[in-house]
Amino acid sequence: MASAGDAPSAAPRVVIDVPSWVESATRSRQAYGTDDEKMALVISLARENVDRRTGGPFGAAVFETASGRLVAAGVNSVTRLQNCVLHAEVVAIMLAQHRVRSFTLGPPALPAHELITSCEPCAMCLGVTLYSGVGRVVMAAAREDAMAVGFDEGPVFAESYAYLAERGVTFVRDVKRAESASIIRAYRDAGGPIYNARSTPGPPGPG
Amino acid sequence: MASAGDAPSAAPRVVIDVPSWVESATRSRQAYGTDDEKMALVISLARENVDRRTGGPFGAAVFETASGRLVAAGVNSVTRLQNCVLHAEVVAIMLAQHRVRSFTLGPPALPAHELITSCEPCAMCLGVTLYSGVGRVVMAAAREDAMAVGFDEGPVFAESYAYLAERGVTFVRDVKRAESASIIRAYRDAGGPIYNARSTPGPPGPG
Repeated sequence: MASAGDAPSAAPRVVIDVPSWVESATRSRQAYGTDDEKMALVISLARENVDRRTGGPFGAAVFETASGRLVAAGVNSVTRLQNCVLHAEVVAIMLAQHRVRSFTLGPPALPAHELITSCEPCAMCLGVTLYSGVGRVVMAAAREDAMAVGFDEGPVFAESYAYLAERGVTFVRDVKRAESASIIRAYRDAGGPIYNARSTPGPPGPG
Repeated sequence: MASAGDAPSAAPRVVIDVPSWVESATRSRQAYGTDDEKMALVISLARENVDRRTGGPFGAAVFETASGRLVAAGVNSVTRLQNCVLHAEVVAIMLAQHRVRSFTLGPPALPAHELITSCEPCAMCLGVTLYSGVGRVVMAAAREDAMAVGFDEGPVFAESYAYLAERGVTFVRDVKRAESASIIRAYRDAGGPIYNARSTPGPPGPG
């Protein structure tokens, strides 16, 4: 970890990407039929993120709802890029909005979009979901599965879901939950860092 | 807005920066004494972001609490970078973590950090605040001031603040609130876009 005493650079900027293996993992197929098929992809990204030590045990992707077309995929990148914001959902949504060149995936001019995520969104990601413009969210593991290994999921309440539901977002739970929860536990059992705010960060992982 | 039907690029990535004027606006002084002085800087960034049409009427910065040293400043960049995540607080925290090369600003090896923001954090930014590791948040405008012009502030409840308080984060309200609220109203009165999820995005602003 560098000291905060370094002089500020003239043009500060942050580059957000996914590990290079994500591109090859998603290249073979561009449209997906069922929630189970979409979730199988997202869970495979979570598993590979753990196996390759490129981040936490979470994957997410944005699809066009009607066509099943994959718009963008993300994996948790908090430790790899040393950035607490980069949960899998955030990475997927940022890349999707960049691809369609719109700060919302929900305007009338675009097809409807949905977020498939290997774990229930934390407080931050539920807010991102609201602003993202996706109309549908499908989840595998539950908040309790992430909390069971020590991840802080933040202030999310029944009223939080009611707030998004009132704005037209629908939620589907427990699609392949057990499979995703087992990856989260395996990450913890292998000594993967639980990167909460009061953690002591380790060195960044491989690129 | 581009069609989502473009072929995916081989190496998708998103670059997060601040407009070039932010660097000159923060160059003259590197340490700040009081909350009022820190907030004056942050509000000046919000005002300039409106005047230069580089984003929404919000500014934020991360400081070292004890020294008053400025670590990173951010401005709302949702429309400029077509990215719903880029509220001022997110930009400031991402740049601060990039500068200190840590996914948390709260570990024992670093000095304590604080977030100064021209408006009360939305649901997403309150989550980012939790994960960021800052120990103190100072706010100018209130949630109601942003909602009054149409911004969706998301599901934030008294219990949300209690959750962060239990984890050691303290909050200070109403520092220069009226001044910040007047900038938010002026932005709306000048026709600035209210970039919620169901908005129809306009063209990106000047870089």
